[in-house]
Amino acid sequence: MLQKREIAATQRRMELASRVLQGDTIAAAKLISGIEDEVPSAREEMSYLYPHTGKAYVIGITGSPGAGKSTLTNNLIGFFRAQGMSVGVIAIDPTSAFTGGAILGDRVRMQHHSADKDVFIRSLATRGWVGGLAKATTGAIHVMDALGKDVILVETVGSGQIEIDITRAADTTLLVLTPAAGDAIQMMKAGILEAADIFVINKADKGGADLLKTDLEAMLAMRAQPANGWRPGIVLTEAIYDKGTEELGEEILRHREFLISSGELGRRQRERVKLELMETVEGFLKDFVHEVDKGDYLSRLIDDLTQGKTNPHAAALEIIRRLAKELSRLEDSGKAGRPKA
Amino acid sequence: MLQKREIAATQRRMELASRVLQGDTIAAAKLISGIEDEVPSAREEMSYLYPHTGKAYVIGITGSPGAGKSTLTNNLIGFFRAQGMSVGVIAIDPTSAFTGGAILGDRVRMQHHSADKDVFIRSLATRGWVGGLAKATTGAIHVMDALGKDVILVETVGSGQIEIDITRAADTTLLVLTPAAGDAIQMMKAGILEAADIFVINKADKGGADLLKTDLEAMLAMRAQPANGWRPGIVLTEAIYDKGTEELGEEILRHREFLISSGELGRRQRERVKLELMETVEGFLKDFVHEVDKGDYLSRLIDDLTQGKTNPHAAALEIIRRLAKELSRLEDSGKAGRPKA
Repeated sequence: MLQKREIAATQRRMELASRVLQGDTIAAAKLISGIEDEVPSAREEMSYLYPHTGKAYVIGITGSPGAGKSTLTNNLIGFFRAQGMSVGVIAIDPTSAFTGGAILGDRVRMQHHSADKDVFIRSLATRGWVGGLAKATTGAIHVMDALGKDVILVETVGSGQIEIDITRAADTTLLVLTPAAGDAIQMMKAGILEAADIFVINKADKGGADLLKTDLEAMLAMRAQPANGWRPGIVLTEAIYDKGTEELGEEILRHREFLISSGELGRRQRERVKLELMETVEGFLKDFVHEVDKGDYLSRLIDDLTQGKTNPHAAALEIIRRLAKELSRLEDSGKAGRPKA
Repeated sequence: MLQKREIAATQRRMELASRVLQGDTIAAAKLISGIEDEVPSAREEMSYLYPHTGKAYVIGITGSPGAGKSTLTNNLIGFFRAQGMSVGVIAIDPTSAFTGGAILGDRVRMQHHSADKDVFIRSLATRGWVGGLAKATTGAIHVMDALGKDVILVETVGSGQIEIDITRAADTTLLVLTPAAGDAIQMMKAGILEAADIFVINKADKGGADLLKTDLEAMLAMRAQPANGWRPGIVLTEAIYDKGTEELGEEILRHREFLISSGELGRRQRERVKLELMETVEGFLKDFVHEVDKGDYLSRLIDDLTQGKTNPHAAALEIIRRLAKELSRLEDSGKAGRPKA
């Protein structure tokens, strides 16, 4: 009975993944929800999709809250659609509980693309730890990639670790600044300035835009020439009036050309793959420890530690050995791990 | 020849650890430096010391920069010495590069205890990642514990993840606030307010101390009664004049009594042991991946991933299996992992 249910469940899962590969956005939305909620079956579905990914071009859009990132994203959707490209948008919102209202307003603006079947928009919110959000973002990128989107725009809100993670996942990273005082300083402190491929000065009609541009240029001139030879461009925009969108879009395409011709694109993609691999290894460990935590095993190990019968070094070795054994057992019974394609 | 050198090296290491157990502070200082610098042999020495730890009482002292934590720490050294207890002090300074001067001034104040052989003071600074600092702190606590210190004061500067980690490592956590506007709000945002066992309002002679006390009391009344039944006390101090030290010291002892009589002390210590165990497992993985990264192995795995020949799930399984194999091999050859006592 249980086995029967298991088979039915597997068929259902594969159906979802197959539908994504046929361009079914409803299946894609369901799968992304599964990743967000850490549904165990979602991992298997992702393994099934994985060989069909790696084709989309990923653009990260980062910057301080209120800089106009959502409006810019909306404009860029229009730009890439006009180029005949299909577009996926992932809007990350780690602070939704606090700023829900304002952000929702911006997001609604994107909805005028929602009738376009070649545009797929999805919001992700933290439901707990930031690490989980980074994982969900990687997953959502893969799903949209497998769905056949040519360009994926990943828009983040706020700053901090999540921004750094996004810039690692993107082929081109935009940093959106405004002439508002302190904006650039905040980003520099967070180490994001270094990671930007293109600088956008939005709200360029506000006083101080030229000054900010001069400052950025001076900073870029001072910093060591990056090994790959790319000189970040600075683009002025007034997103609310759709001004500067064309220039920004062209600059992104120029960066893409550069990445391809210099071989840097392949290097970035490898880095991304490596990062995801390491995150998966860590995820396995966390799952395993969580599982082990339910039984007596970990509790007894901690007893031994508190009584000085063993030490963390030896105990950690034992956990890893047990994990490896557990994994082989699972694999032998065909329940986990084999690549599906 | 190599074997001979290895034996000599082992003897040298064990000599350091043995000397710590005999109360040798020079050996302790050397061992802590070894942990900080991530010298491979330090891990083995720690395994040797581990069974002799778990006796010291750990007090975390946290709060915003400039709140007077170093002066308070200095006063508390005096309090515990007057009780006939030996004291270890770990001063954590993740921002030393920026605020070196001011902090050094405070630290110098502690030096009037430096002639006292029952007081051992050590500063730790970040030399890279914050995770490394947390690990070094745990190590330094163990060394001072093995050294026979009755009480270990861990003083942190700044806020953020490191503060949270420290509160996890401590038996009693003090949160030092000042009447300065916004102080409490900052701490609340960082989630530190929740973790505090005792609140200290320092610079109580400044205006606003009573208001802050009323606010804190209101906040504590509102929050759910903690499961363990402890009601955090609020102590007013003027650290610079050594005022309120007695009350603060008594409050700490009262908290310790509570932890012992309620059985909460054992629970906290188990949590701490578990945390350290998990960090050790993660450390193994990072070391292993770093090692593997030097050869072809990881590179080929990434090739397979980028070509869609495997998926992160399957590749992660393979890494873990290889790690387990590698560890057994090392263990069989007697080079790693056996508990030394």
